[in-house]
Amino acid sequence: MKKFEIKRRVEYYEADTTQKLSLPMILNWAVLASKCQSDELGVGQDFHLARGLGWVILQYEVKIKRRPKIGEMIRIQTVATQYNPFFVRRPFVFLDEDDHEIIRVDSIWTMIDMVHRRMARLPNDIIEKYDAERVKQISRIPNPDKFVDDDQYIERDYHVRYLDIDANKHVNNSKYFEWMQDVMPPEYLLTHEITYINLKFENEIRLGHTILSQVVQQGLTTKHRIMMNNVVSAEAEFKWQEI
Amino acid sequence: MKKFEIKRRVEYYEADTTQKLSLPMILNWAVLASKCQSDELGVGQDFHLARGLGWVILQYEVKIKRRPKIGEMIRIQTVATQYNPFFVRRPFVFLDEDDHEIIRVDSIWTMIDMVHRRMARLPNDIIEKYDAERVKQISRIPNPDKFVDDDQYIERDYHVRYLDIDANKHVNNSKYFEWMQDVMPPEYLLTHEITYINLKFENEIRLGHTILSQVVQQGLTTKHRIMMNNVVSAEAEFKWQEI
Repeated sequence: MKKFEIKRRVEYYEADTTQKLSLPMILNWAVLASKCQSDELGVGQDFHLARGLGWVILQYEVKIKRRPKIGEMIRIQTVATQYNPFFVRRPFVFLDEDDHEIIRVDSIWTMIDMVHRRMARLPNDIIEKYDAERVKQISRIPNPDKFVDDDQYIERDYHVRYLDIDANKHVNNSKYFEWMQDVMPPEYLLTHEITYINLKFENEIRLGHTILSQVVQQGLTTKHRIMMNNVVSAEAEFKWQEI
Repeated sequence: MKKFEIKRRVEYYEADTTQKLSLPMILNWAVLASKCQSDELGVGQDFHLARGLGWVILQYEVKIKRRPKIGEMIRIQTVATQYNPFFVRRPFVFLDEDDHEIIRVDSIWTMIDMVHRRMARLPNDIIEKYDAERVKQISRIPNPDKFVDDDQYIERDYHVRYLDIDANKHVNNSKYFEWMQDVMPPEYLLTHEITYINLKFENEIRLGHTILSQVVQQGLTTKHRIMMNNVVSAEAEFKWQEI
């Protein structure tokens, strides 16, 4: 398995009001590490887009020991560990300057046919570049705890903005984390630190739509749902600790 | 005058759907260059915050020849050119790998007393570090063309989000550019490229408020206003060209 690493410094505009790396930026850095690896292996975006294929993330699991502060230099390591004809599992480890693991992200990826937006088989000549282990079934990430009928949720609507859409013409994944975090009361966000996220994407969202970000709080766990026209677009479970 | 330079590569999450550096990121990179210079001169954030002082930008003028694409390596040069007891003028030049100037940002800065949020005199021991020219009056940036009474504007409301607030506890400047751009119809944004921005800040915005982003279109010029509770928070003039 080919390990790959990038180095990033936390800049002021990547931090939130706590002076620490924001939640969406954690995901952006992870995806950046995998993009840089694909580029280095010669199977980057230009290569797979030329075949009408694009990578899509289906699920994230994020474990946060501590978020790094502005000015800290962080190494993000990644490797494609397992694959089968349709899925790849890819972990990311964030290390601080003392070599301590501060954040771990796990993720499940698939490829889609960009025109019909449906799942495609992973081409052998692409996937073999990563030296991942070929398995019958990749080890799953558990599903996030779902909403049940009598859950009392609060919600807020978010208009999908022009800048929420990235160069792939769909909503940048990290925006889901922003919508899910932002619906929480500011007083909660200022007194609680996030320690765990499990997010599963269900349906794509496009520019111009308005989505609903819904949340149920149960102690130090929150359950989240992003709805578009009564269809679930993503579900997630967050765990928090008091500061 | 001490010139300073940083180098940045355009990453996918810093680009918009055109694959080019987004409007807000242009401003973030400019401010980053000035922060890095202040740190290097030993008068960075920790230094002035310890005296209860913070830098605030009053006005931006941005001239865009072309926005760089994902993967391009850009140098951002800056220098504090002129100052008087209350204001500093600071230009930024963005150079591409062929040494061509692709973006120029001009800006007027002041310092405020962070507790009372009012203008403060620039301390000599801070300002002299930059080797700027002391002048009686700094050369002004013209005012943006303002709304007049019979202008027919369109508007959209934006809730100030948790992540719009930066480590200084106020709205990141670059968010104004997002609100002003986002109110434009997507069809317009996909067929027009921005070439000029003149933005003047008037009043601060805080977390939890809802602002109105208003725009009047006059040919290839748009006039913008950000309103909070019937008070003008910022005004701007944008110039566009057809793609």
